[in-house]
Amino acid sequence: MGKITVVGIGPGSAEDMTPKAKKAIDDAQVVVGYNTYIELIKPMLATKEVIGTGMMQEVDRCKMAVESAANGKDTVVVSSGDAGVYGMAGLVLELVLQYPADKRPEWGGTVAGISAVNAAASVLGAPLMHDFAVISLSDWLTPWELIQKRVKLAGEGDFVIALYNPKSKSRPDYINEVQKILLACRDGKTPVGIVTGASREQENCVVSDLAHFTDEEIGMFSIVIIGNSQTYVQDGYMVTPRGYKV
Amino acid sequence: MGKITVVGIGPGSAEDMTPKAKKAIDDAQVVVGYNTYIELIKPMLATKEVIGTGMMQEVDRCKMAVESAANGKDTVVVSSGDAGVYGMAGLVLELVLQYPADKRPEWGGTVAGISAVNAAASVLGAPLMHDFAVISLSDWLTPWELIQKRVKLAGEGDFVIALYNPKSKSRPDYINEVQKILLACRDGKTPVGIVTGASREQENCVVSDLAHFTDEEIGMFSIVIIGNSQTYVQDGYMVTPRGYKV
Repeated sequence: MGKITVVGIGPGSAEDMTPKAKKAIDDAQVVVGYNTYIELIKPMLATKEVIGTGMMQEVDRCKMAVESAANGKDTVVVSSGDAGVYGMAGLVLELVLQYPADKRPEWGGTVAGISAVNAAASVLGAPLMHDFAVISLSDWLTPWELIQKRVKLAGEGDFVIALYNPKSKSRPDYINEVQKILLACRDGKTPVGIVTGASREQENCVVSDLAHFTDEEIGMFSIVIIGNSQTYVQDGYMVTPRGYKV
Repeated sequence: MGKITVVGIGPGSAEDMTPKAKKAIDDAQVVVGYNTYIELIKPMLATKEVIGTGMMQEVDRCKMAVESAANGKDTVVVSSGDAGVYGMAGLVLELVLQYPADKRPEWGGTVAGISAVNAAASVLGAPLMHDFAVISLSDWLTPWELIQKRVKLAGEGDFVIALYNPKSKSRPDYINEVQKILLACRDGKTPVGIVTGASREQENCVVSDLAHFTDEEIGMFSIVIIGNSQTYVQDGYMVTPRGYKV
């Protein structure tokens, strides 16, 4: 029986991948992932069997990976960022647990990676720092009503809010709805940071505010971080004070 | 003028520290941190000037670090996990920005690290996976009323909830209050994972449920992850489905 491991490769650059993640990939016979992520780690894959698939094919991809391990090959599934945050950790583990115990591939666990929200925050300054909520605006697997409810409650709780998948062609207006919901409970001057491709070559970072941030370029792979009532911007850096007297 | 950089060293093991973090420490002349974290990376510090201080001395420690950089020495401040999540990134950046521009040390930025919540999640299986809220129960810098409010709102929003600093000698009962608040809106059978010292030698992990988890050993450095309404436990693993049909 082979082993299956889910590996978070971090935001993109090799400098942000942990030694544990690198070793898991180096040790594997088969590497499975979304084509874009496979591309990011291509130099590591020269001698490997590689299974890359397109977007929206997560279930097929992970099934192939688990089968590969069940057939005796040590296999890793790679996710960008941390595989446990909107990544493949859960899906792979669910598929592994569906196998009867005697045919189940060995679960090699999840290797944590630098999550996209932490990478984005480090580019902006120190915008998280305090209690925060992470919400994906993708309604592919979650009803839009529930997403809106979560945004509203996080807004009322004065959480710093990090948005994943803030915009796509099929739902260009969700981000405006989110803005509307938050403007009902948070000042229009609240700082908002938008980071796209953190730690990759094309990294882009903009600091705006709640009343205007939707005018900026926001894509499917942007992370949007909305400050709490204490967050401020100085010299271009976004800072949420933890509360120390300085 | 020296450079000041804030570095997240990850949960503790060298295998979880990114090459970027390692390089930042290697390049520095002075390394500043809480004694426990300094101990974790001691093998890297042989030729360095080291400033280690105890708990509750964050402001003094960070002031010393910024002064060290202002005096011309390249300095790093280390935080465990990710320095941008209840770490030193914000405090150091605030202190740097207080310097007049012509005397200000160069801001080397924050190097993201594997956050404690991601490390804890990887030990438990795949408990985050979906929208989640991160809340610290420490009332040292945050009013307890606000913490309770956030717990309640996150509970109502069916967020997965990750608790930092869940217990200390001065507030042994807060975790019971949190349990009470969440039992009002979430089933007592909701899985709860408790991870202490993730990725360190003394790593300890327990899976319980919302009605009983307060009977388990929980310390100041434990991370408690409370599932959402979809989270389940199978074969000891805690899984929050993303929603894929499998």
